[in-house]
Amino acid sequence: MELSENELIARLKKFEKKKKPVLRGMGDDGAVVRMPGDNYVFVQDGLVEHIHFDLTFMDTYRVGKKAVYVNVSDILAMGALPLYFLVTLGIPEHFHYMDIMQLYKGMEKAAQEFRVTLIGGDTIATKNDFFVDVSMVGRLMSRHYCGRNMAQEGDLIGVTGYLGESAFGLSLLKEQRNVSPLNRFVKRYCNPRPPFAIWKGLMKNNIPHALMDISDGLLIDLERMMKESRRKAKIFFERLPIPRAIVLQKKENLSLSGGEDYQFLFTFSGKKLKLLNDVCKYGHISTIGEVVKGKGVELYRDGKLMNIQSKGYEHFTVSL
Amino acid sequence: MELSENELIARLKKFEKKKKPVLRGMGDDGAVVRMPGDNYVFVQDGLVEHIHFDLTFMDTYRVGKKAVYVNVSDILAMGALPLYFLVTLGIPEHFHYMDIMQLYKGMEKAAQEFRVTLIGGDTIATKNDFFVDVSMVGRLMSRHYCGRNMAQEGDLIGVTGYLGESAFGLSLLKEQRNVSPLNRFVKRYCNPRPPFAIWKGLMKNNIPHALMDISDGLLIDLERMMKESRRKAKIFFERLPIPRAIVLQKKENLSLSGGEDYQFLFTFSGKKLKLLNDVCKYGHISTIGEVVKGKGVELYRDGKLMNIQSKGYEHFTVSL
Repeated sequence: MELSENELIARLKKFEKKKKPVLRGMGDDGAVVRMPGDNYVFVQDGLVEHIHFDLTFMDTYRVGKKAVYVNVSDILAMGALPLYFLVTLGIPEHFHYMDIMQLYKGMEKAAQEFRVTLIGGDTIATKNDFFVDVSMVGRLMSRHYCGRNMAQEGDLIGVTGYLGESAFGLSLLKEQRNVSPLNRFVKRYCNPRPPFAIWKGLMKNNIPHALMDISDGLLIDLERMMKESRRKAKIFFERLPIPRAIVLQKKENLSLSGGEDYQFLFTFSGKKLKLLNDVCKYGHISTIGEVVKGKGVELYRDGKLMNIQSKGYEHFTVSL
Repeated sequence: MELSENELIARLKKFEKKKKPVLRGMGDDGAVVRMPGDNYVFVQDGLVEHIHFDLTFMDTYRVGKKAVYVNVSDILAMGALPLYFLVTLGIPEHFHYMDIMQLYKGMEKAAQEFRVTLIGGDTIATKNDFFVDVSMVGRLMSRHYCGRNMAQEGDLIGVTGYLGESAFGLSLLKEQRNVSPLNRFVKRYCNPRPPFAIWKGLMKNNIPHALMDISDGLLIDLERMMKESRRKAKIFFERLPIPRAIVLQKKENLSLSGGEDYQFLFTFSGKKLKLLNDVCKYGHISTIGEVVKGKGVELYRDGKLMNIQSKGYEHFTVSL
């Protein structure tokens, strides 16, 4: 079946001339692109040994799962369902074949949980570092994506699950030699599965305006959302879902600024509060504050504005 | 705009129940997926310092271009036009900001040449290695992809451009201190732009059955094509497009087994020979052999079958 020259040129021109229909480019959890028939979300997120994981605390099976989870999390955070993924593995010489197989098994397991299919990628030798880089495509659930830029004045701010679990789990692994792998916090660190049931509940009821996953810590990620939305967040310390064990050890900063929670942070209309309560049957959801005019994030404790000190690009600390 | 529960469940079921429409998965230059409205090709290919490039010979601007080119090449090799790409950069501590900017400029330049748009990705710190990992999506030009598995008995075998240029260029860089960056072979090594005009000519006339890019060397890649197609290739040394400089230095093995040619290797019906001649106005094309029953690759010189010695997974040598 041949194409005539005109047909070909028409097809080529379609690509060459039209403005690429990128609905949302960089600056969010993923990019949103209009393609014939549907809108798609594209994400790509990599994990590097010693930076994102340490094989002392985590075997390659869990690294494989995590590599899929963090990308699924980004896809869900745009309001899309994951479909397909590719992976580039960077493998240093000292690596064992079985470790690679375990990594693929981990990816397969996580992929099954979210019904996403591995379709290809690349395997390359590296001099030193071991890395896993996943790209993933998903399809938007509705016509609209849930971007970081969608927060509206008067919205309430919600967060799924608990904050700081993963960072607390990592601190336990670093401090204690014999911490159980079944410890709630260690499990969350090693197995950061996105809260899919709650997400489906939220999407089904069309609750989120702005939506993102918390990967670098509540305060920094909320600030990013507010920056994209050009609004200010007021949040209340007493309402934050901080696990009791973290409070007892006075490590609340992990709940404010610890990374890798992979919970969802979202804003929504107060009119949806009743619907939100229904969604709570799928898991824990907290309403932690509200969106107002202005910019940045304000944290209140006992009615008083707290002093949030920014420490570099990715780290905040708060004097509690 | 809310979805009813039934609507949502119907949508979710659509994802959950249907067989994922993967027309071509792993084992080719890219994966082909049927999505509403069109068929798409997904590829992901990474470059690692010291393995795929050496900053002694190549600045980050050229690394950026190359990272885009190798993925464009894979997309074209499936019979698709590139649309969008994402990139993960792994950056070691010692890196300069300007080098990163140069890398993005290189990517932008190559992207403009092929009208492909950067939509996102990830930037991560690494302990040691510098890497660039690109994922790219393209749209099939016709209903059918041009897979490695499409070679038919009786097909002729064609190859674009010249063989061994890139590997010869690298050998010059390694051997000579002051080789000119304008040297034809060095240029091909540093700037492996896929032969787009020829490709368009081939596609317009619907010439290729099987199609792939030569990234690891003619013999290994042709063997892969034959394996996927369950056929045998007979090729003739005298017909191979080996540059005169390579012959003079008796480095013909670089043309048989040198990597990174990024030329296209394809099979086609003899009935298309006249059309193929028309396409030659866009660049050099050689007909190097034919597809027959059997398996593997046979190389003939002066009518005699040559002894091809396989050396490991990626390296062949031939006693010439």
